[in-house]
Amino acid sequence: MKKYENLSKSEFLGLLKELEASYDEAKKKGLKLDMSRGKPSPEQLDLSNRMLAIDETHTSDGIDCRNYGGLAGIKEARVLFSELLSVPFENVFVSGNSSLNLMYDMISNSVTHGVNGSPPWYLSEKVKFLCPAPGYDRHFRITGHFGIEMITIPMSESGPDMAIVEKYVNEDKSVKGIWCVPKYSNPQGISYSDETVKRFACLKPAAEDFRIYWDNAYAIHHLYEDEQDEILDLFSECKKAGNPDLVYYFSSFSKISFAGAGISALCASKANLDFIKASMGAKTIGADKLNMLRHVKFFRDPAFIKAHMEKHAALLRPKFEIVLDKLEQEVGGLGIGTWQKPKGGYFISFDGINGSAKAIISLLKEAGVTMTKAGAAYPDGLDPNDSNIRIAPSFPSVEDLRKAMDLFVLCLKLVSVRKFLEEM
Amino acid sequence: MKKYENLSKSEFLGLLKELEASYDEAKKKGLKLDMSRGKPSPEQLDLSNRMLAIDETHTSDGIDCRNYGGLAGIKEARVLFSELLSVPFENVFVSGNSSLNLMYDMISNSVTHGVNGSPPWYLSEKVKFLCPAPGYDRHFRITGHFGIEMITIPMSESGPDMAIVEKYVNEDKSVKGIWCVPKYSNPQGISYSDETVKRFACLKPAAEDFRIYWDNAYAIHHLYEDEQDEILDLFSECKKAGNPDLVYYFSSFSKISFAGAGISALCASKANLDFIKASMGAKTIGADKLNMLRHVKFFRDPAFIKAHMEKHAALLRPKFEIVLDKLEQEVGGLGIGTWQKPKGGYFISFDGINGSAKAIISLLKEAGVTMTKAGAAYPDGLDPNDSNIRIAPSFPSVEDLRKAMDLFVLCLKLVSVRKFLEEM
Repeated sequence: MKKYENLSKSEFLGLLKELEASYDEAKKKGLKLDMSRGKPSPEQLDLSNRMLAIDETHTSDGIDCRNYGGLAGIKEARVLFSELLSVPFENVFVSGNSSLNLMYDMISNSVTHGVNGSPPWYLSEKVKFLCPAPGYDRHFRITGHFGIEMITIPMSESGPDMAIVEKYVNEDKSVKGIWCVPKYSNPQGISYSDETVKRFACLKPAAEDFRIYWDNAYAIHHLYEDEQDEILDLFSECKKAGNPDLVYYFSSFSKISFAGAGISALCASKANLDFIKASMGAKTIGADKLNMLRHVKFFRDPAFIKAHMEKHAALLRPKFEIVLDKLEQEVGGLGIGTWQKPKGGYFISFDGINGSAKAIISLLKEAGVTMTKAGAAYPDGLDPNDSNIRIAPSFPSVEDLRKAMDLFVLCLKLVSVRKFLEEM
Repeated sequence: MKKYENLSKSEFLGLLKELEASYDEAKKKGLKLDMSRGKPSPEQLDLSNRMLAIDETHTSDGIDCRNYGGLAGIKEARVLFSELLSVPFENVFVSGNSSLNLMYDMISNSVTHGVNGSPPWYLSEKVKFLCPAPGYDRHFRITGHFGIEMITIPMSESGPDMAIVEKYVNEDKSVKGIWCVPKYSNPQGISYSDETVKRFACLKPAAEDFRIYWDNAYAIHHLYEDEQDEILDLFSECKKAGNPDLVYYFSSFSKISFAGAGISALCASKANLDFIKASMGAKTIGADKLNMLRHVKFFRDPAFIKAHMEKHAALLRPKFEIVLDKLEQEVGGLGIGTWQKPKGGYFISFDGINGSAKAIISLLKEAGVTMTKAGAAYPDGLDPNDSNIRIAPSFPSVEDLRKAMDLFVLCLKLVSVRKFLEEM
């Protein structure tokens, strides 16, 4: 294929006519597909259906999960997270169906109550958060909601640019946190290198209330059995580095069991948890223990979970391959886009030429395919290059995904041709 | 029985010796009973066990409850609360297993984001909450946690003293809310009169961000079929009075289905809900919809719930009667205590002579019976008279409750005798 930048004006005009005709045809098909969120497919959710028939009520140590009590969650659920994440049992706090809610609560509580005795953030003139981007839009929405200034940190193949992170964290007292999805990052699928994790553990924050918000959402969400990323465990690295309080480590079963009805966990040092429990204890008597018990009884141990995740992978892999193959076959060599090939997670991050993302997503929308909003992966929804598009292949059927990707490639080409023509 | 105040010193000394001997005997029995919280008994929880076998996954309008989505809860669950509480469907927001959590979130959000456009409370020099007392300790814990000044409002047989409430609310701009358990109040079992509810609806708050925190926790939790309190619906009264935004109305299934695994709801005006959803939407994608579906499928409609609550009542009634009969038989006429006879709810509120409550609870504890902490029903845990004791008869077995009440009466008499002797 000929690179677009090498086409002549008349070649572009011919291509434009062709693409516009195809697009008009496509619109007539009346597609209605939603690729906007990293939602598991019904078939993935079916994998855990048997969990719903579990009607046990008591833990092995005799706790009645139907009744009040147990702020940190039932023992078995804490053990399960502990084994899964290799974090000591006593550092695991198990909560409800949304780890995002836990993250929000940590920020909200820091605003109103500070962190382990430090002043509430509302007393600070300025609170800043570091936001490796492209990143998870819902992280940025939380910090944005609290009026926290977000500083974009560029991502590299090995994680956030640590030189910039270190400079901010170690020198600026108003920097109170950083959002991280350290494994199969949302949306790029990047896994942080050992060096990156070690440098995180060895940060010397200017602010005593700085925390790393470590959202390990895709810890075991591999796509392939033979090619899997592994990352260093930040929790133990922080301990080793003498920084045990540095990290809030979040995890959940949302993409293991049910996206809307999983269980979540916050892992933190004793000092952190003691402080957090004071607020948690004022907020609630405890999260839903019956759902914890259901998870424990169904998922049993890490070996069972591993096998379960392979079933997820078997359903996800063909969808990722449809996207990647399509891009490779139809876009490769045209010079109008770059993308990552993740080995896990839920997304493929695509970058078109500058100034193209909004236009592509708008054309897709018009023809019936909803994508994540352009810019969503950047703080305040502002992609400085207007180039990034998050592709979420998990939810649609294979057939729908093929149709959506045909349309994606068509819109991508059409917008790119128009951009080139504009500049000729 | 002779009133204690009419006993002579030698009669008191004789009684003291007798009671001390009985107490020493009682201690030897090695009781271990917890009457500290309003927890349902295992038999009550069994009433909903069949709910646990419900493994349906989709709502009638095709929503997959296993997946993400639906911030305000599934339609059927909103309809169920709507029917149960006579609040319009569109005003119902269904959430997770803890309405307390919803209340905390409303306060926390007001601190950080204000209320419907008003300034965040953290900018106010002073924020005050009215606390009808005796009241629910966990309410006061929330406001205490946020450093909100709590003003005790005396309770009468018809609810909080409305003249005092009106004065504070209508004149003091720093008064931002009031905690209410309007029906079968915790701990007294008082139901607000129609006049009280109407006066609440007609408040003219000095603060635009003043809200009534209406925790209708025991809306259908009657003890008797033939004698039931009914209260006016504050939600519609507020609308009628032209004050639709005045009330946050909380409800939950915690004491209908499972205390630790129910579903909760916040009912509020459109303007209130629109504002609240901005924060809720930043916090979570939504609460556990599978548990909502379980509740909807099991509880079906208000008629089924009514029959279900009668089964709860059949289990609770004998326990309340044990407490009330015991008090009537052994304490009535002694002039050492007064108490309410509730027609519903979870508690009996007992008032000993001034300065006796801590001592009674301490003696009980020493002999193996844990009660709610003395003073818990007052802001900051400070009962100005040190007289109030909350009796929670729901959890222990009938047999255990009899033992606990024998001990209660014994400790009550012993402390009372000591108090009278001290003052002779």
